[in-house]
Amino acid sequence: MTTTTSRSTGGRPVVPSSSVLRPLGLDEVRITGGFWAARQETNRVATLAHIEHWLEKEGWLGNFDAAVEGRLPAARRGREFSDSEVYKLLEAMAWELGRRPDDELDARFDAIVRRVAAVQEPDGYLSTMFGRPGQGDRYSDLEWGHELYCYGHLIQAAVARARTGGDQLLVDVARRAADHVCATFGPDGRQGICGHAEIEVALAELSRVTGERRYLDQAALFVERHGHGTLRDIEFGRSYFQDDQPVREARVFRGHAVRANYLAAGALDVAADAGDHDLLHAVATQWENTVARRTYLTGGQGSHHQDEAFGEDFVLPPDRAYAETCAGIGSIMTSWRLLLATGESRYADLVERTLFNVVATSPAHDGTSFYYTNTLHQRVPGAVAPADVASARASSSLRAPWFEVSCCPPNVARTFASLAAYFVTVDEDGLQVHQYADAEIRTALPDGTPVEVDVHTDFPDSGVVTFRVLRDTGRDWSLRVRVPAWSASARLSSGGETWSVEPGTAEVRRTFRAGDEVRLELDVSPRVVTADDRIDAVRGCVAVERGPEVLCAESLDQTVDDVAELVVDASVPLREEDGVVVATGRRAASTDRAWPYPENASVGPEGQGDRTGPAGEPLDVVLTPYHDWANRGPSTMRIWLPTA
Amino acid sequence: MTTTTSRSTGGRPVVPSSSVLRPLGLDEVRITGGFWAARQETNRVATLAHIEHWLEKEGWLGNFDAAVEGRLPAARRGREFSDSEVYKLLEAMAWELGRRPDDELDARFDAIVRRVAAVQEPDGYLSTMFGRPGQGDRYSDLEWGHELYCYGHLIQAAVARARTGGDQLLVDVARRAADHVCATFGPDGRQGICGHAEIEVALAELSRVTGERRYLDQAALFVERHGHGTLRDIEFGRSYFQDDQPVREARVFRGHAVRANYLAAGALDVAADAGDHDLLHAVATQWENTVARRTYLTGGQGSHHQDEAFGEDFVLPPDRAYAETCAGIGSIMTSWRLLLATGESRYADLVERTLFNVVATSPAHDGTSFYYTNTLHQRVPGAVAPADVASARASSSLRAPWFEVSCCPPNVARTFASLAAYFVTVDEDGLQVHQYADAEIRTALPDGTPVEVDVHTDFPDSGVVTFRVLRDTGRDWSLRVRVPAWSASARLSSGGETWSVEPGTAEVRRTFRAGDEVRLELDVSPRVVTADDRIDAVRGCVAVERGPEVLCAESLDQTVDDVAELVVDASVPLREEDGVVVATGRRAASTDRAWPYPENASVGPEGQGDRTGPAGEPLDVVLTPYHDWANRGPSTMRIWLPTA
Repeated sequence: MTTTTSRSTGGRPVVPSSSVLRPLGLDEVRITGGFWAARQETNRVATLAHIEHWLEKEGWLGNFDAAVEGRLPAARRGREFSDSEVYKLLEAMAWELGRRPDDELDARFDAIVRRVAAVQEPDGYLSTMFGRPGQGDRYSDLEWGHELYCYGHLIQAAVARARTGGDQLLVDVARRAADHVCATFGPDGRQGICGHAEIEVALAELSRVTGERRYLDQAALFVERHGHGTLRDIEFGRSYFQDDQPVREARVFRGHAVRANYLAAGALDVAADAGDHDLLHAVATQWENTVARRTYLTGGQGSHHQDEAFGEDFVLPPDRAYAETCAGIGSIMTSWRLLLATGESRYADLVERTLFNVVATSPAHDGTSFYYTNTLHQRVPGAVAPADVASARASSSLRAPWFEVSCCPPNVARTFASLAAYFVTVDEDGLQVHQYADAEIRTALPDGTPVEVDVHTDFPDSGVVTFRVLRDTGRDWSLRVRVPAWSASARLSSGGETWSVEPGTAEVRRTFRAGDEVRLELDVSPRVVTADDRIDAVRGCVAVERGPEVLCAESLDQTVDDVAELVVDASVPLREEDGVVVATGRRAASTDRAWPYPENASVGPEGQGDRTGPAGEPLDVVLTPYHDWANRGPSTMRIWLPTA
Repeated sequence: MTTTTSRSTGGRPVVPSSSVLRPLGLDEVRITGGFWAARQETNRVATLAHIEHWLEKEGWLGNFDAAVEGRLPAARRGREFSDSEVYKLLEAMAWELGRRPDDELDARFDAIVRRVAAVQEPDGYLSTMFGRPGQGDRYSDLEWGHELYCYGHLIQAAVARARTGGDQLLVDVARRAADHVCATFGPDGRQGICGHAEIEVALAELSRVTGERRYLDQAALFVERHGHGTLRDIEFGRSYFQDDQPVREARVFRGHAVRANYLAAGALDVAADAGDHDLLHAVATQWENTVARRTYLTGGQGSHHQDEAFGEDFVLPPDRAYAETCAGIGSIMTSWRLLLATGESRYADLVERTLFNVVATSPAHDGTSFYYTNTLHQRVPGAVAPADVASARASSSLRAPWFEVSCCPPNVARTFASLAAYFVTVDEDGLQVHQYADAEIRTALPDGTPVEVDVHTDFPDSGVVTFRVLRDTGRDWSLRVRVPAWSASARLSSGGETWSVEPGTAEVRRTFRAGDEVRLELDVSPRVVTADDRIDAVRGCVAVERGPEVLCAESLDQTVDDVAELVVDASVPLREEDGVVVATGRRAASTDRAWPYPENASVGPEGQGDRTGPAGEPLDVVLTPYHDWANRGPSTMRIWLPTA
């Protein structure tokens, strides 16, 4: 395991001071076309303005003005953490500006920053929710107050700004806030943590941007303080805040799924910068157990609506999946850090799965409505969300333009704006491509060797990815590509040769010359997957995937009215027709009974179930990408399909 | 359909002014031995005092003293509805006094009543939560304030007192409160409803006790006001309060499961006393759809933890079952009223199922700890609840002595104390026995013909029930007995003849003479049941029942450590050994994988699943009554068992 010291502080979300792989910045890798470029464009032209509009409309931006004008607490709007949504929008804007300069967007960014900065108090404290007459005292409610959580997003926005240029006022504000946090919660200060992890990742990154070790030390303090019960117990238990077990001792992610992932990401940042292999190993083990037992097929995490939390192992009901969009983003943050720290492709596999099937599912095609939760089974056609009123968050109905708790839309926006930074890394050996899209890579190896590669692909529609080297290099280097675990077979071609490669990492090493091409062929033919028998909720069902995409049956595409009427015959091979995957099934012959638990005294493994009537004519079960569902109005949908 | 006008106002919870069947009072039917007598005894000697102790300890009784002493709101303890738990204890005590006079208990009852009565204001308003300086205004929060809900329980306690005798102070208090409600929320008053139905059933019954029609009219007003959106919308939607659709228009129970059932019971009381067949039919249809699609095998209702609510049709996950004890009691209240109104045995079937598998499950054997939720699948051994601190309600762990929201323990207590009143009815034709236990029936038919019958049985261990007539009657009459739907075969014997009877109602009509015996033989041999395929969460599983009892596999009885390791071979007949039911299964060969969704390209109906390894030796799967589980310490448990 080699260690690469970061050289660049360019536009990228995560820059460990030491890691196996070095992330590239937005100035080094650009997505130029295809699936993700389209989403980045929608994010740029529609989503950012949509979010800004709603922040104004709901008064969450106005809270800052009201603070300056002395109208708080009477005029305050929104939940206790609404400041953070403003900061996440700023972070999204900053990455977008790093991706593509835009004077008008830069001016909007600065205008918001000025409104925020005006609220900061002389000692660095900054909140529209606490600290004024008539409000709660500062840090009087660490369980639910979210002050440190809000700083975390403020600091992440400032880190994005620092790394992408422009006016640095936000960076100054964030430093003052961070200094205030260190003064208040330092080794000799209050021994508290925030009920929602987030400050940890943010302080670690601010340390990297500023070179100030004390921010990292404070992040480490917060990480280590978890699990000692400094927060009050609550109905959901202290596991909700990850205050039930020390990070080093836990075996699996538990409690609130966003909090769990944000804390894990922060712990990994601390581990990376402190060279703390034990901490890295502890989080990696938790990740392994969480992926093996507590993660949906989509990559979604968190199966409880009640507390937005992980369930026990194998409690993964598709129809009550919470799978919050933000938990998916948190999972990507965690997996990306593990990938940088270890170079292991399994982490990039989960990033890909979660990007395609959680993050890409949340926004509607037009980028102005979102899923907060991402159910895997819609039993009743959803209701169209109101266009001008914030929706309840836990709706598993149709996407909504905004939520009373609206963490997800700006989280999607910041992720899309910085997405290219999660695609490619370098190390002394060469270049590693983890995610596939049309892209331009313009970077240099740690020894200064310039590397320029263009990527061409129709991924995920096609599994062919071509890497074209644009300039000669004076030394040999390796192009490493991820072979996803889902690709049953894969081939790599270079220099006139073609060879099979296994899931994991495949490599071409040579002294590349301008015009050299490497071609990767992944198998994106549709495939049937099953589930561990301990996931009771999908026993007797199959799902279909194609490349990185989980497919679903949406009622609008079927010859039956409701997907509840479908069973599939998984023994008939899947077909692809005009790019659409089709399974063979039949109409389910469910029997309506007054009592749904009939006696079946002679039941055997085969005799069980209601669907033993005449098989009926075979029918087509049309399967489309899950991330596309519910863009055409109300429908029923399921990913897991009962087998005949 | 004949209509019987009530004659007696003896000790019974529900006395419709007109009904097909007339309920008997606690002075007319006594449970003398067996399963339910043991629980009534525990309730009498342990549970009532336990509840009183906790009401004092938590200060919920002390709230009344604090009100009198001017120490509210500062000294107030507990949630906004804590007064109601005091009233439910009073109701339980009143029924218990009706069942079995007890001077010491009567004195304790009176002492509590005096503390309550002292708080009532001159206009009848009574609450420790609202209306004082520093508290919310009266009725300022109909959504969550629970003032009318609390009155409902106050009135139900008074009704119990009125029907069982003793000092009538509580009755006077309740009448004044009811008068206040009528004055405030009458036809010309505030057009509001309570966020938690309960006042409706209570006012209807108070009308029956007092002969005051206006209480019934007010109950009818509250019933009809539901569904018009007078309550604010909330995150869970107005269906939570049943304020989404008028009672006459709804097709199924929805929203909070306790609220839904209490409202249904109130609507049925209004329908009975107003002769409103449309309203009766509407609720009966809702009951049918709820039982067919939204009820657990145990009779438990409500599958959402988040909002304690019904899920969509067929969303019945056993491992996230909420199945609140109080919802089961509410379901019994509703089913009992439907039985009285129609005489149809299916309602008594659900009462029986719910009594044995929800209500009997909640209390521990010693009657001093309780389940609030009643999960059907415990995946991780529960944690022992603290003995001296109220637990969070939604715990599906081990039973707890008390809860922060502690509606269930006193609800169980009032149900057990009045249980005999749900067992037997009369009409002009004769006697109907709906539930089986050792019992003494001493009543008269509407024409005055005295009927005395003793019931002897070891039910549910045995399916044999003997009815012994104790006195001659001058006319013929019919003894009707319920043949439960679960009894695959049944026989009735009388006068030397034996004949087969079908599920439903069976009858013996004759001019009975003292010493005549009727013998009912039900089939309590264990049976395998399956589930509608649309209940995805238990696909591929079977459950086992025996008589009215749902059985479960608890880890403590198995040769494997965790019930997750069990699969059953449902093709092997069940055995009974020393009264214990044993299925044949084997140890599951689950495969731990890094990713739990393996590809299975050639999967057929049989190829699916992880448990395809060597079958291993057959092993016994020991099945015991679900209501007994978790009385021996932490364990895992499941009712639905995967088939091999």
